[in-house]
Amino acid sequence: MKIEKVYFTPVAKKLLENDELYKQACNEVINSITSTVWPIGSESFIINASEKNVNGVVPLKERCYIELEESYLWYREKPLHVLKHEKQKGGPIDVYKEFSGEDQIIRHVGLEFETGNISSAHRSMNKLLLGLNRREIDLAMILMPIKNLSYYLTDRVANYEELEPYFENANNHAFIFLGFNADHYSYGNDVPIIPKGKDGMSSRSIRKW
Amino acid sequence: MKIEKVYFTPVAKKLLENDELYKQACNEVINSITSTVWPIGSESFIINASEKNVNGVVPLKERCYIELEESYLWYREKPLHVLKHEKQKGGPIDVYKEFSGEDQIIRHVGLEFETGNISSAHRSMNKLLLGLNRREIDLAMILMPIKNLSYYLTDRVANYEELEPYFENANNHAFIFLGFNADHYSYGNDVPIIPKGKDGMSSRSIRKW
Repeated sequence: MKIEKVYFTPVAKKLLENDELYKQACNEVINSITSTVWPIGSESFIINASEKNVNGVVPLKERCYIELEESYLWYREKPLHVLKHEKQKGGPIDVYKEFSGEDQIIRHVGLEFETGNISSAHRSMNKLLLGLNRREIDLAMILMPIKNLSYYLTDRVANYEELEPYFENANNHAFIFLGFNADHYSYGNDVPIIPKGKDGMSSRSIRKW
Repeated sequence: MKIEKVYFTPVAKKLLENDELYKQACNEVINSITSTVWPIGSESFIINASEKNVNGVVPLKERCYIELEESYLWYREKPLHVLKHEKQKGGPIDVYKEFSGEDQIIRHVGLEFETGNISSAHRSMNKLLLGLNRREIDLAMILMPIKNLSYYLTDRVANYEELEPYFENANNHAFIFLGFNADHYSYGNDVPIIPKGKDGMSSRSIRKW
């Protein structure tokens, strides 16, 4: 997979320029998505583009999260204190990691890989913004397919370009939006279709926060 | 109908305290929703609470908007310049009015009556926040049923309490969230069910911006 479009808020840009650990956090996310290949065992990511909406997207997310857990020791399902204890509603952040170096200062980083529709992407964005507002996270990231790729994924899955008009709402916070794309499109049927939902995924225990 | 829960951001509170026209804008919205009665011709709003999800919600929105148009000269479907011309995607704001007095200063006020699911409510909120960020609107309002009432409305319609954890994301802007409730609940079948969708609504031309 490759990263094709990115948006760093001015605050995020500054943060990454001045702090190697935030840069590392961003790189770990980028490495995890770009190391994803299809079909499994090949050298790049080739999407079956034989038909609109033919591929699933949840397995892509799973692979990316597994890479983050196994290679970089991120955690899954980090609840925000404000949602879990104060408001007593709302789910956790998908993946999360704390980074600290010699200065002993902890950098809290949260990420969501969006596989719902566009309004669901707005909710993810607002959850991460709430975490930033409350200083429970210091840097937020959202991963989404770009529009061209989403055409071949599950119907109505949100794409980068759809949420793009609203990125500037996050400008006072450290927020990074990443739009990924397949390396190649195959218009025949020489690569398998990515299964929808959790089909074909082996059950494993996640590294839960 | 009655207003049962409200949230004024600190900025909105200050704005209304210092400017009669913003206060008027808020009152016009409150009057429009609270003047809604059911069944038509009665003195209050009685909801048929005989069964979960039995009533529609779109006709409620329509009545409120018609009241805003006819009694207070609000406009429908006001596009944001940033979405329509700059980003070239995203729909208009539901209802909109410009207020000005002797000082000739125009106050731009936008409102959405939420009848979608909770993630759709996040999108409405973000659209209004974008308009506030770009100073295309000066005051934003969202109208939603409170949880108790939403139980008897269309399945999954967003309620005030669901979005409440995120209200504080709007704290740097002038934003008002209004939660409305029926005056009375009828657990028998002595009041009619509110039709779903646009059923039973006469076609009329809207006062479009």
